[in-house]
Amino acid sequence: MSKKLTKRSEDYSKWYNELVVKADLAENSAVRGCMVIKPYGYAIWEKMQAELDRMFKETGHQNAYFPLFVPKSLFEAEEKNAEGFAKECAVVTHYRLQNDPERPGKLRVDPQAKLEEELVVRPTSEAIIWSTYKNWIQSYRDLPILVNQWANVVRWEMRTRLFLRTAEFLWQEGHTAHATKEEALAEAEQMNDVYAEFAENFMAIPVVKGVKTESERFAGAEETYCIEALMQDGKALQAGTSHFLGQNFAKAFDVKFATKEGKQEYVWATSWGVSTRLMGALVMTHSDDNGLVLPPNLAPIQVVIVPIYKGDEQLAQISEVANEIVRDLRAKGISVKFDDRDTHKPGFKFNEYELKGVPVRIAIGPKDLEKGTVEIARRDTLEKQFVAKTEIVETIVQLMSDIQSNLHKKAFDFRNAHITEVNDFDEFKEVLEAKGGFLLAHWDGTVETEDKIKELTKATIRCIPLDAKEEEGVCVYSGKPSNKRVLFAKAY
Amino acid sequence: MSKKLTKRSEDYSKWYNELVVKADLAENSAVRGCMVIKPYGYAIWEKMQAELDRMFKETGHQNAYFPLFVPKSLFEAEEKNAEGFAKECAVVTHYRLQNDPERPGKLRVDPQAKLEEELVVRPTSEAIIWSTYKNWIQSYRDLPILVNQWANVVRWEMRTRLFLRTAEFLWQEGHTAHATKEEALAEAEQMNDVYAEFAENFMAIPVVKGVKTESERFAGAEETYCIEALMQDGKALQAGTSHFLGQNFAKAFDVKFATKEGKQEYVWATSWGVSTRLMGALVMTHSDDNGLVLPPNLAPIQVVIVPIYKGDEQLAQISEVANEIVRDLRAKGISVKFDDRDTHKPGFKFNEYELKGVPVRIAIGPKDLEKGTVEIARRDTLEKQFVAKTEIVETIVQLMSDIQSNLHKKAFDFRNAHITEVNDFDEFKEVLEAKGGFLLAHWDGTVETEDKIKELTKATIRCIPLDAKEEEGVCVYSGKPSNKRVLFAKAY
Repeated sequence: MSKKLTKRSEDYSKWYNELVVKADLAENSAVRGCMVIKPYGYAIWEKMQAELDRMFKETGHQNAYFPLFVPKSLFEAEEKNAEGFAKECAVVTHYRLQNDPERPGKLRVDPQAKLEEELVVRPTSEAIIWSTYKNWIQSYRDLPILVNQWANVVRWEMRTRLFLRTAEFLWQEGHTAHATKEEALAEAEQMNDVYAEFAENFMAIPVVKGVKTESERFAGAEETYCIEALMQDGKALQAGTSHFLGQNFAKAFDVKFATKEGKQEYVWATSWGVSTRLMGALVMTHSDDNGLVLPPNLAPIQVVIVPIYKGDEQLAQISEVANEIVRDLRAKGISVKFDDRDTHKPGFKFNEYELKGVPVRIAIGPKDLEKGTVEIARRDTLEKQFVAKTEIVETIVQLMSDIQSNLHKKAFDFRNAHITEVNDFDEFKEVLEAKGGFLLAHWDGTVETEDKIKELTKATIRCIPLDAKEEEGVCVYSGKPSNKRVLFAKAY
Repeated sequence: MSKKLTKRSEDYSKWYNELVVKADLAENSAVRGCMVIKPYGYAIWEKMQAELDRMFKETGHQNAYFPLFVPKSLFEAEEKNAEGFAKECAVVTHYRLQNDPERPGKLRVDPQAKLEEELVVRPTSEAIIWSTYKNWIQSYRDLPILVNQWANVVRWEMRTRLFLRTAEFLWQEGHTAHATKEEALAEAEQMNDVYAEFAENFMAIPVVKGVKTESERFAGAEETYCIEALMQDGKALQAGTSHFLGQNFAKAFDVKFATKEGKQEYVWATSWGVSTRLMGALVMTHSDDNGLVLPPNLAPIQVVIVPIYKGDEQLAQISEVANEIVRDLRAKGISVKFDDRDTHKPGFKFNEYELKGVPVRIAIGPKDLEKGTVEIARRDTLEKQFVAKTEIVETIVQLMSDIQSNLHKKAFDFRNAHITEVNDFDEFKEVLEAKGGFLLAHWDGTVETEDKIKELTKATIRCIPLDAKEEEGVCVYSGKPSNKRVLFAKAY
């Protein structure tokens, strides 16, 4: 807590890494690439989970749980999916350790305990789930299956960063099965809409909805819907994806159903997920050089009360007022903490709660007792006001919604100020370099051009926006004709 | 659904296995020893989770998340713990698959991608957590740490059974750190009390609280508190454990703190957990030959309404009544389903909801419409009654609490009728054989006797009950003096 945060303008990446650790969100562990999510960080994740879970259930989904391990023979069944994940997966090969005869007190893998078939630690669960669905689906009456699971997954990433890219991460993965292509497509789009609504309304993060180009699609998908957010350093972050999987997994696992007419047809599939990566998006969208800034919806502590006092008598008087405020706010469903620790000074506490992004701070000192007021400070704008005791609850309730919408507005304005239409490749490079953000540019639709632009600028096509207008133009790189603009950016 | 369940009296074990699958709780997966928890089963588990999570938070605990993998060098640090789990652990040795040159289209482990240090898939998380706590704890001010995690763990069991013993299972594991032995002991006992309260009041499962003998303790614990339940076949089931770990892990990972007086001391630890095994306990405590019987607290659907009708007009009239009941019950926080599927007959639906343990069924037919009544059937006693429309809500609300307490009473009476005091070894064997259940017997306190009794009878000491009375006696096996009775049983 002692040292100041690096400023965003100095080193955005360093600022992020420091903030995640100092604000007690997460830290690196003894396991390469795996993080420990600390209680304060986990409490934010729990709020995300609760809201998403509610939204999934409201749209007819149920939770279930499938095995952590995928036998190699299932893993390799859907070829593109296997190819996409084989290069970075953790593989269990043995089921026992034994005493190491050469190193007393140490253990080694027991060579006798080799598995007949290796098990891949799930990087995603399509394979294990579709091998299960095969037994659940016989007829159109068994469809749709609308299932979600909350789970950990492992992708052996070589370069990791807390929340943004970790070898193990937590996520939810929805896996649905449908009788028709139309229904599966509608499901994939619906869940992308759910993610967008969640990001905007709950996390106060504005997003662009779109579909991925072929080369950016999920391995095994026929269409990938996504939501793309913009961070304060002008880089994009993919915040959620929803895949229309066609009949690829049904064919790989031979999952057919009898139609009403008695015909045998392959089942249509979707999958969709968001992960603890959203924690990174949260930090990088709203926070500032003083620390975290949390939207009230996601704040484990929404209001903190700090007493400013000398001696026990003053503390007792202030505590009386504070406890009353605590009671009144809790009755309104607002989470509030009265920090009466005598081991730390008010200034230390102010810094701590600023660092941790508590949306509202109430300070109460002897002068406030006299005047019947308290000082209320909001974390987002750092504005302070004195409020009469009788008006505290009303003020705080209003502030909760004001701060939530102010954070969205601020991020929305920033994002919109960083969407630039560019019309030739010089302009493309210039804007990308000078300002970053999203570039709306014409593209000829080929993988070759996409790859070339990536190679030359590090920018990728984040998505083809769903609301892209029909517009005649020419590709910024190749000059070939194009009829809509797509969204480029450098990305996390 | 078509075939009848095996009767409990015919083959209890078969009855259990069939019921878990037929009631859609869980099924075996393509991965040896790992299960798929199906949506209906998972919905029950979610209710357990929500209540336990509430109770943990009420007692001051916070959730966090630690890595799935334990590097071998950390795994082996606490010797007894390592020894206890080494024989049955899944080990990750490689981080990549590659195309198999000998089998086109297939993958194999990439021999180049061998990990420098093997990773054990956590069978329990003391090692990884205490290696983390080392960095979190410097002074007495950092204590206590009261953390819980909801996670999956893997123990490579050779003989598995759905919920009762699976290679992967879901659980929560609390891991706390304290400045004093007394505080850690009090925490361990408190959490065992929380488990007991949860089992009794929420799951309607009566339990005996006790401590384990040395040979039955958790590997690495100095004292293991436990709750023991009795199943309908007279076998015991350990439903939860809470361990006082002494300073074993603090010493293994060198975790010291500065006391108020500035001295360096090792930290005291506890850990405690319950798992999806509780699902097995739930099934085996309350269910009957017709299927599941669920306490209302745990039932995903508490009330089901089945219409009995001929033709659309009757259905429309019944639906109007049913929808009103749905609305009224939901307003009381009762989960209710109106099953108006026209693809299945009422008799089929009756059987299905009986099998799935829905606590209350409401049937509405044309005669009920005339009379202004409905038929209400309770699952636990199979009793039926006709109730006037105006009294439905009141009746159901009352039934919810009646069924919950009736299930507890029934299990409590059964359990008490199956606790037998035995005074010599012939009586011990006779009662164990003829009646099963818990045997309260004197024991000389030695591991030798405990082992011998196990060898001869398969009964183990489930616990030394916390409320065991001081009583002079002689060991049922050795005849040596003893001053209290301990609880023996055959166990799951």
